[in-house]
Amino acid sequence: MWSLPYGDAVLHGLWYAAIVAEAMSAALAAGRRSMDWAGVCMLSCITALGGGTIRDVLLGHYPLLWVQQPWLLALISGAALLTIPLARLVHRLHAAFLVLDAIGLVVFTIAGCDIAWQMNASLPIVIVAGMITGCVGGVLRDILCNDVPLLFRSELYASVSIVTGLFYALSFGLNLNTGVWTALTFVLGVSFRLLAIYYKWEMPKFIFSEDAKLGDDKS
Amino acid sequence: MWSLPYGDAVLHGLWYAAIVAEAMSAALAAGRRSMDWAGVCMLSCITALGGGTIRDVLLGHYPLLWVQQPWLLALISGAALLTIPLARLVHRLHAAFLVLDAIGLVVFTIAGCDIAWQMNASLPIVIVAGMITGCVGGVLRDILCNDVPLLFRSELYASVSIVTGLFYALSFGLNLNTGVWTALTFVLGVSFRLLAIYYKWEMPKFIFSEDAKLGDDKS
Amino acid sequence: MWSLPYGDAVLHGLWYAAIVAEAMSAALAAGRRSMDWAGVCMLSCITALGGGTIRDVLLGHYPLLWVQQPWLLALISGAALLTIPLARLVHRLHAAFLVLDAIGLVVFTIAGCDIAWQMNASLPIVIVAGMITGCVGGVLRDILCNDVPLLFRSELYASVSIVTGLFYALSFGLNLNTGVWTALTFVLGVSFRLLAIYYKWEMPKFIFSEDAKLGDDKS
Repeated sequence: MWSLPYGDAVLHGLWYAAIVAEAMSAALAAGRRSMDWAGVCMLSCITALGGGTIRDVLLGHYPLLWVQQPWLLALISGAALLTIPLARLVHRLHAAFLVLDAIGLVVFTIAGCDIAWQMNASLPIVIVAGMITGCVGGVLRDILCNDVPLLFRSELYASVSIVTGLFYALSFGLNLNTGVWTALTFVLGVSFRLLAIYYKWEMPKFIFSEDAKLGDDKS
Repeated sequence: MWSLPYGDAVLHGLWYAAIVAEAMSAALAAGRRSMDWAGVCMLSCITALGGGTIRDVLLGHYPLLWVQQPWLLALISGAALLTIPLARLVHRLHAAFLVLDAIGLVVFTIAGCDIAWQMNASLPIVIVAGMITGCVGGVLRDILCNDVPLLFRSELYASVSIVTGLFYALSFGLNLNTGVWTALTFVLGVSFRLLAIYYKWEMPKFIFSEDAKLGDDKS
Repeated sequence: MWSLPYGDAVLHGLWYAAIVAEAMSAALAAGRRSMDWAGVCMLSCITALGGGTIRDVLLGHYPLLWVQQPWLLALISGAALLTIPLARLVHRLHAAFLVLDAIGLVVFTIAGCDIAWQMNASLPIVIVAGMITGCVGGVLRDILCNDVPLLFRSELYASVSIVTGLFYALSFGLNLNTGVWTALTFVLGVSFRLLAIYYKWEMPKFIFSEDAKLGDDKS
């Protein structure tokens, strides 16, 4: 999320657009739970920055981005509050937000891989760091809204992040030209996600529903 | 929460009173979910110490207070267990606990701001650190009790914490006499919170309830 | 969890068996929530490694085990995916999994105590670290499955972990022969847990159900 390749103004711009889009989607989720304005801002901040925060805590990568750049909290809160009067509009722009969300997933994944790579993490951890950055914000949002996280149940979301990370990490291993490879990764990841939405691709589900006891007495 | 201004015996005393009050309120919440005694102690510890713990993890401020002073865990567990035979009484002392809770919110916020300030955090982060210290314990309690956190839905709680932090942080910027300013902050914060309860002040809520899909296919 | 006493091949083997068993039980829980395959893997990883991860984050003990040994994620995901075709069998092997789970609880607790001890934590924190390592994975699983954590409501689970930790920590205080003492702790802990299951020992519960308000306006 944080340290994108230098000079990559386009990617930076997309990152901000994605942060704002995440914040606005989270604000709608807060509205569905009738949260008050402070709650709307908090849920938006946690959703938009939570993935990178958890990644940094797990990797021991301090200080956190929003601690260094606290104006991000203001940006996100502003976007969240702006969503309140514009809720109908945001809701109607559904398709645009799906695209922004796909862009966010891919850009966050790329940035997460970069951070882990800079910390000399091994390749599997680079990919896991990308996935955490891209996906965990939504998991936190769902936990705070008291849902079973959608990530675990639906669509190709984590999978898109993993494929994106795998492809992107190839460039580390092969010493490829980062700029071109990043653009390729971006196109691949976003296309994969949008195709998955359009054609309703899903992973197979594991459905187990016996009058079961095993899980129930384990903790 | 942790490092209050030196010599400030009154504030220290209030901090302990607030910790105990938080523990007992959390124990009642555990009782409503029919937790066993071990669960009661754990929920109380997480509620009373969770805010400061999350703040320290996010700021990279180690070691945690309860790791340095593990007898706090015993104090909190003791208060939690004591709540079990005294449940009716604690419940009837409702008003007293609301006051103690308000005191806790303000004292925790002040202590959280202090910690962040000592770590040379920027002013916005000082205020965020105060809010996390004051509010996150209750959020963790609600998540573990499988509720949507009340913080996001009701009353001026986070807002009181933010106003308290803003006011308190003025003294850092202006080099004011800390002792007097702390007392002023305390009176302001507690009064604000109690007035908010008494007059049922609330933030406006954002209620959005269309047969909506946007949030549902994002994760 | 991580650094078991050197040369203790038996304990190491048990640790791996327990990790795999935790992963398979978590996969069944995921199946009950109809998660997709990616969700099954993620829930299994979080359940199997979450306790040690939270402990390490709280103690500031970096890097995390799975960051150093990412192949553990592959092992756990493999076990989780294997559970899908074998769900009936795993379910029928209920009793075996209870034993493996008891072994895991005790082995994780011992390993957690070791880590904290190596970091020069005080004795109470050594025991708390053991309990976190043994128990928190299941708490995270229950939160992600949107349940009130079983740990807080049922059976002697945390209690077994605490007793195990207390007994094990004696050897640190008394400079006893670690190898023999570890074996003793293991036998004691597993027996305690299995007896607790067999005889349905439970801690007393704290049940409080007034048309209460106190907890409801606290956050």
